Amino acid sequence: MTVTVKNVIDLLMEPVERLQNTVDTLKWGNPDMEVKGIVTAFMPTYQVIQQAIAMGANLLITHEGLFYSHHDNTDAIENDLVYQEKRRLIEESGIAIFRLHDYIHRYRPDGITAGLIQALEWQSYVEKHQTAASVLSLPSMSVREIAEYIKRRLDISFVRVVGNVSLRCTRIGLLAGYRGGGNLSIPLFEKEKLDLIIYGEGPEWETPEYVRDAIHQGKQKALIVLGHSESEESGMKNLADWLKSTLPYLPVFYIPEKPLFQVI
Amino acid sequence: MTVTVKNVIDLLMEPVERLQNTVDTLKWGNPDMEVKGIVTAFMPTYQVIQQAIAMGANLLITHEGLFYSHHDNTDAIENDLVYQEKRRLIEESGIAIFRLHDYIHRYRPDGITAGLIQALEWQSYVEKHQTAASVLSLPSMSVREIAEYIKRRLDISFVRVVGNVSLRCTRIGLLAGYRGGGNLSIPLFEKEKLDLIIYGEGPEWETPEYVRDAIHQGKQKALIVLGHSESEESGMKNLADWLKSTLPYLPVFYIPEKPLFQVI
Repeated sequence: MTVTVKNVIDLLMEPVERLQNTVDTLKWGNPDMEVKGIVTAFMPTYQVIQQAIAMGANLLITHEGLFYSHHDNTDAIENDLVYQEKRRLIEESGIAIFRLHDYIHRYRPDGITAGLIQALEWQSYVEKHQTAASVLSLPSMSVREIAEYIKRRLDISFVRVVGNVSLRCTRIGLLAGYRGGGNLSIPLFEKEKLDLIIYGEGPEWETPEYVRDAIHQGKQKALIVLGHSESEESGMKNLADWLKSTLPYLPVFYIPEKPLFQVI
Repeated sequence: MTVTVKNVIDLLMEPVERLQNTVDTLKWGNPDMEVKGIVTAFMPTYQVIQQAIAMGANLLITHEGLFYSHHDNTDAIENDLVYQEKRRLIEESGIAIFRLHDYIHRYRPDGITAGLIQALEWQSYVEKHQTAASVLSLPSMSVREIAEYIKRRLDISFVRVVGNVSLRCTRIGLLAGYRGGGNLSIPLFEKEKLDLIIYGEGPEWETPEYVRDAIHQGKQKALIVLGHSESEESGMKNLADWLKSTLPYLPVFYIPEKPLFQVI
């Protein structure tokens, strides 16, 4: 059975009504090419692309973009050697690269958030899924216990925390990716009576400062910041599992990356 | 001698041509009020405002905004108890709060960057000041040595690093605040032949991923992320010193905050 790049893209977009404005485009390659193997990853790093090629895959599906820009703006780096060498690797290999960002976030539940919740084995604690956040009701644990649990489950070496690590929490808001902004995260605290928000990434002067002020006022709130990739890579790992079962006649792999940051 | 809030604001704006669009406005208070004492701080946290009031200051000058939003958008939090309690504290105290952000970044050199460089005692290593970045030429040190030195000088407990901590660096780009975005930081690496960029805050998928790709390609580059407040508070501390010498008949204090994040 022949499966084309376009067939796979259609399959990935099928659960969601077609979006008019989206970053989810075929960044590279021919939509009519026959797919020999698929790799999913959080970020199409130089190393992930090399590994995908070495594994014989010719379709790479990643959550984030190719060139360090959400909207593929490469104006500032056209003459940059890192950009040029990455571009050459892709061109010479003939690999197709599709970005799956807006669509997978619009799956119901959000495919990236669902992957994170599954990695944390918190499925049974989900109270509700909202568009950009999930509300969970956990057995009481301290912020430190939750942080340590998350580090173990996601195999990450650190998280950043605002607040009292001894605070016991049950009501938790979970926001994967860059959803830590004040407009999304701050109103959740009161609306959902949350003790703790866990998000991937967000501006430091928004939600973290709100939590700091709340604590100065004697209110019991806390924040755990996972890191962007740390919060989203499980979703792309899950996608590989789903593609494997949906296209059992094709080799499908997930490629993890090493942690982006180390703490010193 | 009577100094009004407006006199102090005029003094702070004097070095720069008046900006048409700016977040540097009097967020609270009467411009004609006589100033009894001045406090500077990075962020007008609830605790900083309390301390400023307790010290008898009636003009607070901060680099960031009051309510967790660069453009003072409070639509989403009008009914929030943290917001309301903070607003009440300000209203009842009568304190004036002025935000000094765009103007101090437009001083030549940038007053916030200059504060950071002075705190690091790197003044003699500055090769040039650009609009949003400074280029320094340091005696050769490893990334780890630089990170440890910065932590000691700024009295911070951690920095986040991308790259090989053994890499020896001499050419360094320094960007205070939220200037870690790809458009600003990435082109600097090649244009200024930098080994290392040190910035306050930026999107994780932009410059950090560029550095990761560069390293995968065998290029020698590294990144140190300080944190937003960690990179800018020295500038506001310096401002207090300058105000003290310029307005010697007024009490002027800098109020530091505890670190926003802890690492677990």
